[in-house]
Amino acid sequence: MSSSQTDTPAVSPLAAAIAAADRIDGSLKAFIHRPSSYAAPAGGDGPLAGIPVAVKDLIDTADMPTCYGSRVFEGHRPQQDAWIVARLRAAGAVIFGKTVTTEFAWRDPGATVNPWNPAHTPGGSSSGSAAAVGAGIVDIALGTQTVGSIIRPASYCGACGYKPTYGLIPTEGAHELAGSLDHLGFITSSVYWAAVAHAVIARDGKLAPPASPQAFAAGVKPRKLGVYRSSKWSGVQPEVQQNFDGVLRRLEAQGVQCVPVELGADIAELHELTNGILAYEARAAIAADIAGKEALAGPNIRDLIALGAGISQQQHAAMLARLAALRVARDTAFGELDAILTITSPTTALPGFEKTGDAIFCSPATLLGLPAVTVPSGFSADFLPFGLQMIGRGDQDQALLQTAQWVSTILPRSRPAPLG
Amino acid sequence: MSSSQTDTPAVSPLAAAIAAADRIDGSLKAFIHRPSSYAAPAGGDGPLAGIPVAVKDLIDTADMPTCYGSRVFEGHRPQQDAWIVARLRAAGAVIFGKTVTTEFAWRDPGATVNPWNPAHTPGGSSSGSAAAVGAGIVDIALGTQTVGSIIRPASYCGACGYKPTYGLIPTEGAHELAGSLDHLGFITSSVYWAAVAHAVIARDGKLAPPASPQAFAAGVKPRKLGVYRSSKWSGVQPEVQQNFDGVLRRLEAQGVQCVPVELGADIAELHELTNGILAYEARAAIAADIAGKEALAGPNIRDLIALGAGISQQQHAAMLARLAALRVARDTAFGELDAILTITSPTTALPGFEKTGDAIFCSPATLLGLPAVTVPSGFSADFLPFGLQMIGRGDQDQALLQTAQWVSTILPRSRPAPLG
Repeated sequence: MSSSQTDTPAVSPLAAAIAAADRIDGSLKAFIHRPSSYAAPAGGDGPLAGIPVAVKDLIDTADMPTCYGSRVFEGHRPQQDAWIVARLRAAGAVIFGKTVTTEFAWRDPGATVNPWNPAHTPGGSSSGSAAAVGAGIVDIALGTQTVGSIIRPASYCGACGYKPTYGLIPTEGAHELAGSLDHLGFITSSVYWAAVAHAVIARDGKLAPPASPQAFAAGVKPRKLGVYRSSKWSGVQPEVQQNFDGVLRRLEAQGVQCVPVELGADIAELHELTNGILAYEARAAIAADIAGKEALAGPNIRDLIALGAGISQQQHAAMLARLAALRVARDTAFGELDAILTITSPTTALPGFEKTGDAIFCSPATLLGLPAVTVPSGFSADFLPFGLQMIGRGDQDQALLQTAQWVSTILPRSRPAPLG
Repeated sequence: MSSSQTDTPAVSPLAAAIAAADRIDGSLKAFIHRPSSYAAPAGGDGPLAGIPVAVKDLIDTADMPTCYGSRVFEGHRPQQDAWIVARLRAAGAVIFGKTVTTEFAWRDPGATVNPWNPAHTPGGSSSGSAAAVGAGIVDIALGTQTVGSIIRPASYCGACGYKPTYGLIPTEGAHELAGSLDHLGFITSSVYWAAVAHAVIARDGKLAPPASPQAFAAGVKPRKLGVYRSSKWSGVQPEVQQNFDGVLRRLEAQGVQCVPVELGADIAELHELTNGILAYEARAAIAADIAGKEALAGPNIRDLIALGAGISQQQHAAMLARLAALRVARDTAFGELDAILTITSPTTALPGFEKTGDAIFCSPATLLGLPAVTVPSGFSADFLPFGLQMIGRGDQDQALLQTAQWVSTILPRSRPAPLG
C-alpha cells in the first residue's frame, strides 16, 4: 500500500464523485441526469453504505428520469425502481445519476466520449457507465449486456467490467432488448468493487462481501487457464494480439499453465445465433414503443426492428432450442480450467462515434450465459486501454472474481484516465 | 479525483510505508537498512512533515549505516548527515531507510529486483530508491546521477525521476563519483512530489511548495517542445520508439507543437566526454578508499579506476574545458521551446542483473547540467514501464516540473507495480 494513496484529503466518496463529475462531465458527457441533491441512503451499514453508484439510463429509477437513450422516452419518469436499483439502495448505495446508453442499448450512440481520448468512442451500449468509471468519477456503475455492452465499453475506457451468470440479476425494470440474452452487471474501478457488487446482488443475500480491499487484494491464484483465440484471431489488431500474448507470458512466468481451448461451437456461429435471437426479440420488445414515433428513433434501432420482422416465430424457436442445448453444455470446455481467457474486442476504442466497436469476442460468454470479467491490461501505442476478458463457469461468479483479482495483480493497473 | 483513492483507511504515510516495506521488501530488496523505530521528525509543519523519504546508501546519515554499496565500507557509520539529509529532516521528512546503490554508484549491482518483473534489473545506480518508489513503498527517495543513475532506474521501475540543475543541491556528504558531473536528485511517485522536493531544496528556502496535489494537478501546458532523437535513434528498441512516437501524437493532438532539435554536439561525443571525465575523477575519488582492499571491490569499479589511471591530468583539463564551453552554451538549443523530450534509455529494463542498462540518452542533460524529469509513459508488451524524459533550461527547474506535470496528465498513470 502506497502512501501516495493518502494524498487525497479524506472526503466522502459521494463528495469526491460530485467534485469529479462537476470538473469532468462537461467534456466527458457520461451523465444524462444528476440530481441537485442526495437523500441519505437507507441501508446505513450495508456493504455499499454511502458509495455512489451510477445507473445506466436503460434501468428504471423512480426519482430520476429514465429515457432508455431514446428521444421517444424524453422526460419519462418510471413509477418505481428497477429490482437492481432497489437492491443497491437497500445495500446503502447512493444512486448518483443516470448514465448515457446507446438507444435501447443497441447501436445508436449517445454523446459520451472516451476518457482516454475524446476523439474516440467509449464503446457501448453502457457508454456513460464505462466512461464515468474509467474517468474516476465513481467506483461502481450499472450496465447491461446483450452481446458485449458491459465488457467492451469497460475495456475501451480502462475500467473493470463484470457480467454475471445469466439470470443472476433479475432484469425487472431494465428495458428489454432481448430477454433470452439480456444481463445486468457492473462496471467498476477494480475487481474489488465488482466482488462487493456480486455479494450485494447474490439472491439469497447471504454472501459476505470482501471485508476490505486489503482482504481481497491477493485474490486466488489459478492453476490452469484456457486460452480462447477462436477462428477470428487473424482479424484481431496486431497490438491487441501482442497485449494478449504478453499477458500469457506473464502468467506462465508465474507458473500458471495456459492451454488453448474451444467453446463448443465456432465463434461465428455463436455470434450469428446471438444476432438472430436479438433481432427477433428486440422487435417484440421495442417496436410498440416507437410505433408512430419512428422519426424520433435512430437508424440502427429501426434497422434492427426491420431485421427482426424478417425472422419467423419458427426460426426463433429453433434458435432458442440451439441456445438451450449450448447452455446445458456451457461448462463443458472448462475441465480442470479455473477460467478461460480471451480478448474483449478485436481493436482498442476506434476513433469516431458512429460505431461502438466489434462485440464478437463478447458473444460466447453472453450467449452461453457464463460469467465474464474484464480487467485493464495495459495501453496501446496511442494510449488507449487494452482489456483482458476472463470467462468463468456458470454460477461460479465468486470464483471467477477471485481469479480475476489475482490476475489483475500481475498486470499494469491504471489510475483514472488522463482526461479525468 | 476518484473515490477509489479513498479505499485505503486513513493511516499515516509512515505507517503505510512500514506496512508496505514489511510486505514487499523481502522479495524486492530495495533497502539495506531500515531502523526498528522512528523518532518524531523536527520540522513539525514543514512541507514534508511526516513524509517518509528513503535515502540512497551513497548519502551519509548519522543515525544509519552508510556503505556506499561497497563491502569496503561494511558497517560504516558517518559522523554527520549529508547536507541534503539535514535539509530533508528540517522540512519534516522521516528518513525511512537506506536504499541499495550499485557499488560507489557505478556498475556493480546490488540485490534489488525490478518491481514490475523480479527477473529484470531495476536499473542503477539508484536501484533501491527506484524500486522502493516504483513498488509504492514510499513517495520520495533520494538518488544520485553522474550519467543516468536517477532517470534510468526511475523509468525502468515505473517511477518519476527528477535530476535538478547541476549544483542546485550541494553534494556534501554524498560519496563522490565524479565531482564535475555528480548530481543529487529525487525519485518520486508523481511529479507533484518532485515539485515538493524541489521547493524544499531550493537554496534560498523561499520557494513555496505546491499547496496540494490538487493545486498542482493541471501543471502548465507547453506551447512548443523539442524532440531529441539523436544520432543513436536507429539503435533504439522498436517498442521504445513506438512509445515515444505515441507520446508525440498525443501531444500534437492536444495542440502542442513538437519540433526536432539537436543539442550542440553529437550524443556520442557527449557520452564519450562524460565517460572520460567520470573515469578520471572516479579514480581520484575512490582509489584511496579501496587501496589494499581491492579484493572486496567489484570488477566494474576496479575496471573504472584502471581506466581513469590511463587518463592524464592534461587530458582531464582539456575535457573540463570542453565541458565548460558546452555548459556556457547549454541553453542554446531551447529557443522558444518549453522543454526538450527524449527517451530515458534505448530499452526497457533488460532481464538479468549484471548490467544496469544503457545510460547514453541521459548523458546530455547530465553533462550539460540541465534539469531533467522522467515520467512513466506506458508499458511494453511484457508489462515493463516506459519512461519519457523531459529536459529543461538550466536553473529553470520549477518551470520544467510544471511542464512535466502537464505532460503527465495526458499519459497513462500507473499505480504501484504489480509485484508491490
